[in-house]
Amino acid sequence: MRAADVGDPMMGRLVRWQGPTAAAEAIRRGSLPEEFVVRENIPEHGPSRIAELHRRFQAWRARLEIADPAADLETGHRAGARLVIPGSAEWPTQLDALGHSRPLALWVHGSADLRFSCLRSVGVVGARAATAYGVHIAAEFGVALSEAGWAVVSGGAYGIDGAAHRGALVGDAPTIAVLACGTDICYPSGHHELFAAIREHGAVVSECPPGVHPTRARFLIRNRLIAALSRGTLVVEAAVRSGALNTAGHAVSLGRHLAAVPGPITSEMSMGCHKLIRDRNAVCVTTPGELIELVGLIGDDMAVPARGPVVPRDSLNEATRSVLDAVPLRGGAGPASIAVSAGVDLTTALSCLGGLAAAGYVERVPKGWRLRKDQPQ
Amino acid sequence: MRAADVGDPMMGRLVRWQGPTAAAEAIRRGSLPEEFVVRENIPEHGPSRIAELHRRFQAWRARLEIADPAADLETGHRAGARLVIPGSAEWPTQLDALGHSRPLALWVHGSADLRFSCLRSVGVVGARAATAYGVHIAAEFGVALSEAGWAVVSGGAYGIDGAAHRGALVGDAPTIAVLACGTDICYPSGHHELFAAIREHGAVVSECPPGVHPTRARFLIRNRLIAALSRGTLVVEAAVRSGALNTAGHAVSLGRHLAAVPGPITSEMSMGCHKLIRDRNAVCVTTPGELIELVGLIGDDMAVPARGPVVPRDSLNEATRSVLDAVPLRGGAGPASIAVSAGVDLTTALSCLGGLAAAGYVERVPKGWRLRKDQPQ
Repeated sequence: MRAADVGDPMMGRLVRWQGPTAAAEAIRRGSLPEEFVVRENIPEHGPSRIAELHRRFQAWRARLEIADPAADLETGHRAGARLVIPGSAEWPTQLDALGHSRPLALWVHGSADLRFSCLRSVGVVGARAATAYGVHIAAEFGVALSEAGWAVVSGGAYGIDGAAHRGALVGDAPTIAVLACGTDICYPSGHHELFAAIREHGAVVSECPPGVHPTRARFLIRNRLIAALSRGTLVVEAAVRSGALNTAGHAVSLGRHLAAVPGPITSEMSMGCHKLIRDRNAVCVTTPGELIELVGLIGDDMAVPARGPVVPRDSLNEATRSVLDAVPLRGGAGPASIAVSAGVDLTTALSCLGGLAAAGYVERVPKGWRLRKDQPQ
Repeated sequence: MRAADVGDPMMGRLVRWQGPTAAAEAIRRGSLPEEFVVRENIPEHGPSRIAELHRRFQAWRARLEIADPAADLETGHRAGARLVIPGSAEWPTQLDALGHSRPLALWVHGSADLRFSCLRSVGVVGARAATAYGVHIAAEFGVALSEAGWAVVSGGAYGIDGAAHRGALVGDAPTIAVLACGTDICYPSGHHELFAAIREHGAVVSECPPGVHPTRARFLIRNRLIAALSRGTLVVEAAVRSGALNTAGHAVSLGRHLAAVPGPITSEMSMGCHKLIRDRNAVCVTTPGELIELVGLIGDDMAVPARGPVVPRDSLNEATRSVLDAVPLRGGAGPASIAVSAGVDLTTALSCLGGLAAAGYVERVPKGWRLRKDQPQ
């Protein structure tokens, strides 16, 4: 895990072809198997493939020389983490969708079983520099998802990520923080207590060995894990230039659901979300129920459509409504003139006026009929 | 115009078939042309067609008896309005898309030529009980549309309508208020001065004769005119149950563009907009430019896509970025260890470090290289 950069697909192919132990031996030995080199050198991978393979191979070898896997394992275990490898019971098989950039293994630190937790999980991501609106929404969605039995997967950062984790800790479902550094590193440092709570009610996960610090590249590569672990990703707030949009891109390219929360068009932090919605890459989501409907199973998880109150006026038939519209607010009008302006005959007008009076809409006055001040809406 | 309810398609067909004068004469005479009755009685119009025609005919006749078209014309003209009829130079021919519910004529009061004004026009509609956010957005869009030469068509109501008109009065393009009452009636009464300004820099329009007061039915029927006059309709704020959604429905059924402005999901006044966007009936619009691109002509009116700032870091190549990521923030690291953790050879690392130092990203310290505190973003 120390030899190649996280998510290196060339290393991914070597490990998949030879197995991790043989791959490490080959690198140490300083000679790649001839057959692998031939396989890598196919035209579809581009012309300068062999030069690139050679360059990476030298880098892997240099790093492997100073790597100490046994010490890594011991450090990790002493910190309380476990190494989960492909094929083990806790391995989330949905990561296979990443192909050759699938992680070689994952460090997991926490009470939750990673595979089981992520069966019903949603990525909730967004800006670090979130607004109060975004933080509020992220926390509300976190609570509602967790209470509905959905694990919230996020990146443990300040802003939206932290709010989503905190909300999720309220419910029963576990929450998963995927870090861009070793699970023993607390980044950001202000989330020390949050990570402790996540370890207790979920898990902190990383493909980086213990002691590895985050870099920009690792953040971007980490984002593919959030997308790949979850059934779908929700972007709560994101500027137009934002790591959350990178995660969103991974969700789209993996064929997972993508949703975004709209916000005020005057807020820069909603511009990324609006762009995703405008480009029809993301579904516009306004309630946790709508999100669960999107990522859930058809039939099990249908959202209740937004609907206004049904008012008594709706239940009036067309003729009665016309008559009601023809009754004046002030003064009063006789049934004949009401019938004419409503466009109905006199008998109909009289029958409608009787019904409207009984329902409290109109009243009889010396000059005929008029609307009641306290009529139902 | 006094005989039938506004938008009555049966009257529309009669007038289209016979012309308005002959239609009025037939109604006064008390006998509809045999051929028209036969034409109306086609199965696709439903079974009880003849009974309905008879009922309406009686209503038309009763109303026509008390109507005084000459007095209406005189009242209208005295108030300063003019009657615009189909076929005249000022008639907006896009109303023909309404088919048999096309208005029989329109009263127009104002300096603007109705047909010419509506060639490049957008309906801007929304809730009366708008929030400060909605009013701000409506006014901003009104200003920007008018300054870009687009007429704003709206309903003259409190809230979004009024703000859109007021914004539009800032620019050069005319603004058109379509009322659900006679153009001589000021409804709502608080918009007395606004309507005066609109008459001066645009027009107040109605299909109701002078003196006619608004009713619920007339509001709904009026909405089809806002949709039909404009190239597209923008819903700024709307509750789930809202007249603006009725206008939106007309825009969709007329095949015109429909757009909606997103807002906070915590705001009831944005729920209708979000529903339109979620159901993919409306395009999510966040700037006036995006709206103009939607309703405008391809090529002439393209919006500038939302984009974040380009920062110097973007211009670094991949190797240089890896090297930069490998340079520690504190202490310092030698070029060899930086090369190993960046995954590049020593020559590349040295060359990248030189470039990064020149650009102000890194600095030389006793222990090797470290990041500068004041490095560019």
